[in-house]
Amino acid sequence: MIRIALDVMGGDKAPEETKAGALLFAEEIKKSKKHVHLVLIGTENDLKDLENHPLKSYFSIEIARDYLPMDIKPTDALRRKESSMYVGAQLLRDKKIDAFVSAGNTGALLACATLVVGRIPGIERPALAVPIPSLNGFTVLIDGGANAEIRPDYLPQFAAMGIEYAKILGKRFPKVGLLNVGTEENKGTEMQKMAYALLKQRFDNTFYGNVEGNDIALGTVDVVVTDGFTGNVALKTMEGVAKLISHILKQEAKKSIDGILGAFLFSRVLKKLKKNLDPRTYGGTFFLGVDGIVVKAHGNSDRIAIKNALNVALKGVEGGLNENLKRELEGWK
Amino acid sequence: MIRIALDVMGGDKAPEETKAGALLFAEEIKKSKKHVHLVLIGTENDLKDLENHPLKSYFSIEIARDYLPMDIKPTDALRRKESSMYVGAQLLRDKKIDAFVSAGNTGALLACATLVVGRIPGIERPALAVPIPSLNGFTVLIDGGANAEIRPDYLPQFAAMGIEYAKILGKRFPKVGLLNVGTEENKGTEMQKMAYALLKQRFDNTFYGNVEGNDIALGTVDVVVTDGFTGNVALKTMEGVAKLISHILKQEAKKSIDGILGAFLFSRVLKKLKKNLDPRTYGGTFFLGVDGIVVKAHGNSDRIAIKNALNVALKGVEGGLNENLKRELEGWK
Repeated sequence: MIRIALDVMGGDKAPEETKAGALLFAEEIKKSKKHVHLVLIGTENDLKDLENHPLKSYFSIEIARDYLPMDIKPTDALRRKESSMYVGAQLLRDKKIDAFVSAGNTGALLACATLVVGRIPGIERPALAVPIPSLNGFTVLIDGGANAEIRPDYLPQFAAMGIEYAKILGKRFPKVGLLNVGTEENKGTEMQKMAYALLKQRFDNTFYGNVEGNDIALGTVDVVVTDGFTGNVALKTMEGVAKLISHILKQEAKKSIDGILGAFLFSRVLKKLKKNLDPRTYGGTFFLGVDGIVVKAHGNSDRIAIKNALNVALKGVEGGLNENLKRELEGWK
Repeated sequence: MIRIALDVMGGDKAPEETKAGALLFAEEIKKSKKHVHLVLIGTENDLKDLENHPLKSYFSIEIARDYLPMDIKPTDALRRKESSMYVGAQLLRDKKIDAFVSAGNTGALLACATLVVGRIPGIERPALAVPIPSLNGFTVLIDGGANAEIRPDYLPQFAAMGIEYAKILGKRFPKVGLLNVGTEENKGTEMQKMAYALLKQRFDNTFYGNVEGNDIALGTVDVVVTDGFTGNVALKTMEGVAKLISHILKQEAKKSIDGILGAFLFSRVLKKLKKNLDPRTYGGTFFLGVDGIVVKAHGNSDRIAIKNALNVALKGVEGGLNENLKRELEGWK
């Protein structure tokens, strides 16, 4: 039995949308007949309406006496040990659950995951791995924002994590690229030059070399490694472009009969485009390197995004994401 | 009389497309009756067919005995003093021309501009300023890739350059944002924290604070300052997303009658979208901080892009871009 826990109290739309998302997921478990059990962590008050729910056999309730506000500081989060997020991290550490999903404050979740659950041996800094739609299906970008400042030797670790994630998502022999400002070996700052050498040494054929920003969406490689500062800027820049394009399409569509009619006929395409570029489609991103599956759902998640995030976690457990990663890192010793 | 020079030998499609672009520009000068004169710098062999051209009164020819290949190293470029690019930089230094445009190797152009033409007093590192389409018309991103590594105190200088550029493009009171991984004051690495303090001190009301990647396309501010590494990644990431979207739209349009018809009726919109996101639309980016107007055209420029780059240069001269910047920096002493 796979046990996936959800922090019902985390997210801008918690607990209504988190609960609704949990029920959508429970419905899916029921249909799929998979051996999966959902654990909902939240305050008694917010969970009592689910006690006699028809889907109750698919989930259990774990009461937490406290919960964290969305603007909490990571250091404060570590002090509030009765919060739903902290309780989730403890359950994961104690192997009482196989995965933990939260749409709460990112820094708080990273802190609880790293310090309560702990790191996988061989990983110095856990990192956020984000799958990005690309011409080649998707590209895993890691680090998506957990570590603004890094050392070059973290990048082979990020690469190992990204590779295992890409495998879970169906890539058989993932290729890794180092995000840089040119493709030649000697490009970038000292950080990139040193990281290039370390990646080449560690991965050899799996390492493609340097890639540039456009290669993320073009899908030149399956995994793009970078520091959390650059990764976060790249991710958010893409979000902005997608919004701009959607705005231009909408505005232009209103301007003429051809535009209105074209947009109407094209609506399926535009919907698909929006879905492709919407971060909620993927629902959640793995916080990899922690000794337990942790999925960060977007703070703004609605029920669909929460359900998707729970599925991301399930996929990670089913695919043996952390076991594979540990095996790979064993070989590095 | 404003004198704009073009490096006819620079660019993947030189000299055919550079010459064709120059003639399109000459045609525009003729029509506009502006007091503008074009100077074409290239080898005798490549320019002899223009000697008796009907538009000859709008341009003159400057013979260079050498030209730089597209993959030249900056250090080698500085040694080849008879190249069209080096000659252009010399003409600019000697005030024989008001602006210089090249689609040649970026590093070589930056080296020739910085070391032959020289810097504006108060600017330690010239930087590439790139206007990016946004919900607010455009956002000037600086540095777009000239300086992979920077010091925090360069950022107020980048901001000053970006502000003057934004003014040239019609913004009356440009606001400046610092590219970061969150909007709070204490976000980012030591570099961003120090830069934040310096920007706040120098610009006060003009400084908006931290912005994130999505703010570039959303147009939250008029000028976004960052190091050349992050700036280059952001720019290229956007290019990639635009290509991905254009690909999705094309593929989907083929899949059904509705799609085909929709795309047909929507074609004007799609063309506008493509134009908006195509770097060639702007034609060229200013290399600011050099004591003379230098415009870098995309290496892959066709005649339209070259013509647009020449117009960018003209706009800079007409708007007094460098004079305004010098005046601003005078006040900093």
